[in-house]
Amino acid sequence: MNAPDPTSATRFEPQDPEFAVRVRASFARQRAMTLIGATLSLVEPGLCEIELPWHEALTQQKGYVHGGIIGMIADSACGYAAYTLMPATASLVTVEYKINLLAPARQGLLVARGAVVKPGRTLSITSGEVYARHAGRSVLVAATQQTLMMLPDTPDTPEADEVPRTGAE
Amino acid sequence: MNAPDPTSATRFEPQDPEFAVRVRASFARQRAMTLIGATLSLVEPGLCEIELPWHEALTQQKGYVHGGIIGMIADSACGYAAYTLMPATASLVTVEYKINLLAPARQGLLVARGAVVKPGRTLSITSGEVYARHAGRSVLVAATQQTLMMLPDTPDTPEADEVPRTGAE
Amino acid sequence: MNAPDPTSATRFEPQDPEFAVRVRASFARQRAMTLIGATLSLVEPGLCEIELPWHEALTQQKGYVHGGIIGMIADSACGYAAYTLMPATASLVTVEYKINLLAPARQGLLVARGAVVKPGRTLSITSGEVYARHAGRSVLVAATQQTLMMLPDTPDTPEADEVPRTGAE
Amino acid sequence: MNAPDPTSATRFEPQDPEFAVRVRASFARQRAMTLIGATLSLVEPGLCEIELPWHEALTQQKGYVHGGIIGMIADSACGYAAYTLMPATASLVTVEYKINLLAPARQGLLVARGAVVKPGRTLSITSGEVYARHAGRSVLVAATQQTLMMLPDTPDTPEADEVPRTGAE
Repeated sequence: MNAPDPTSATRFEPQDPEFAVRVRASFARQRAMTLIGATLSLVEPGLCEIELPWHEALTQQKGYVHGGIIGMIADSACGYAAYTLMPATASLVTVEYKINLLAPARQGLLVARGAVVKPGRTLSITSGEVYARHAGRSVLVAATQQTLMMLPDTPDTPEADEVPRTGAE
Repeated sequence: MNAPDPTSATRFEPQDPEFAVRVRASFARQRAMTLIGATLSLVEPGLCEIELPWHEALTQQKGYVHGGIIGMIADSACGYAAYTLMPATASLVTVEYKINLLAPARQGLLVARGAVVKPGRTLSITSGEVYARHAGRSVLVAATQQTLMMLPDTPDTPEADEVPRTGAE
Repeated sequence: MNAPDPTSATRFEPQDPEFAVRVRASFARQRAMTLIGATLSLVEPGLCEIELPWHEALTQQKGYVHGGIIGMIADSACGYAAYTLMPATASLVTVEYKINLLAPARQGLLVARGAVVKPGRTLSITSGEVYARHAGRSVLVAATQQTLMMLPDTPDTPEADEVPRTGAE
Repeated sequence: MNAPDPTSATRFEPQDPEFAVRVRASFARQRAMTLIGATLSLVEPGLCEIELPWHEALTQQKGYVHGGIIGMIADSACGYAAYTLMPATASLVTVEYKINLLAPARQGLLVARGAVVKPGRTLSITSGEVYARHAGRSVLVAATQQTLMMLPDTPDTPEADEVPRTGAE
């Protein structure tokens, strides 16, 4: 499940040379990322990073960032890592993810890093980590593993009259 | 992993008779739940429900509720289900959760239901479902399984000078 | 994730009326089940049970049944629960599973029960529990959640010259 | 979740200098590993590898190694990776694991590699991969993420009159 080390991130060859533009446009449509204040900080073939500054509005009862918020940015970072390798005409849905919360995030900047473990015709597998950076330190706060499903020839945008599609139908 | 059927939810005996007050006060401190518009709709021994109306601000790129948002309310519903059975002096942290996304949530009301599978001295296991209710129909949109860890004699509130504690330390 | 209660197990309509024969024949080809001594004790639409008597050969270092063995019977019980609902010409592969081990199994009979949460054209989701029965008591020892993928028009038997297929390709 | 690269495996400092002897003795007591033919091929601080030759007795209905068997060696490899870092007087139990099956294993040698992501006082988190080696090729067949719980001052051996202990009690 080794995430690729940064220098080897180009081991995956994207099918769509415009993958980064496509990923950034899709991310920009994720209203939920805007709501929490997350931004897309890195897009490479098979690799994405999302940054999220700590904010009181994101906390749970003890003042830490809510585990579900950490799950959100991990899910999106991993999903977009896989999406970089998809054909331009496909859409991608999260089938499932599992996340371990390892340490509380009480301040600083959260960085979620998603990496493709195995890209696939139908299913893709990713793994990711979330770090909290503060005062020159970086602490691992979460580790995740995720399964995604490609929907071929399916737009990645809302459609007025679409028939909703997920893998589990 | 059968969630208890609603009529048998009292199979668990809470240690703290004031569990519902404690759970509601803790939920009210979850700023992240306020941010997304989620409310606590049911608190029974070993059982909690959280409701979240669809809102455009919660969506991913196709206009469905973001899978991470669904994970958030599932995580909180399951966590508070376990918290109902904890002693009044304990705090509870999510160790990990795994969630399958089964159908898109494009409108209506999301209802996350968490139930205790096995309460424990140290670890508790829960399972949950998230339904989308719209126009008289209820569709299962997610299923989750979660592990939590009790921190005995630990306040459930922020502390100025606390040493952060999680199980994974 | 409510597993169907036993009396409602017929809520799923099998596509193949001969599903039970097909499931039993497939199980009989699972040499790994023979190796550990597991048998198929129940096959209903969307529901399967596998039984495994405790045996010293199945243990880990402390004399309990190895958690991986518990995972094996949970994986098979859930997989065959989903397979009951598949067309006769399809094969089914496990995409992933997650299992919580809740109590040690040191003696008696293990019973793994798998139930379909959501059957699908491509992906199916199941959940399951494993119980240890001994001296008139039944103890919950594991809870699992699983994702499977249907391979249409693919034999469920070994083929000399097959091209291996999994979802993640 | 980056597994440590092999050259940096010594980033963890074992508490027990005799960790390798202790791990090998514990593995030798796992009768289930003997049953399937698995051996412990590498023990380093925070890192373990288990090898398992393909054998027809390990297969599922299509002649591939059963996914549950792959889960078994992944669970043990990850668990022993964590056990290398535990004090000599502690025992360790698997709380849960999640495994994605990525490709069928139809022949050759399976190698499960487990690595510590975060060791802890109470909980430890690991990740692992399973590879199938055949004819000079190595194919990734599974990726896993696991949670373990340390039981302090608890023997790692069977006891005649022990009170069974797991985290979920």
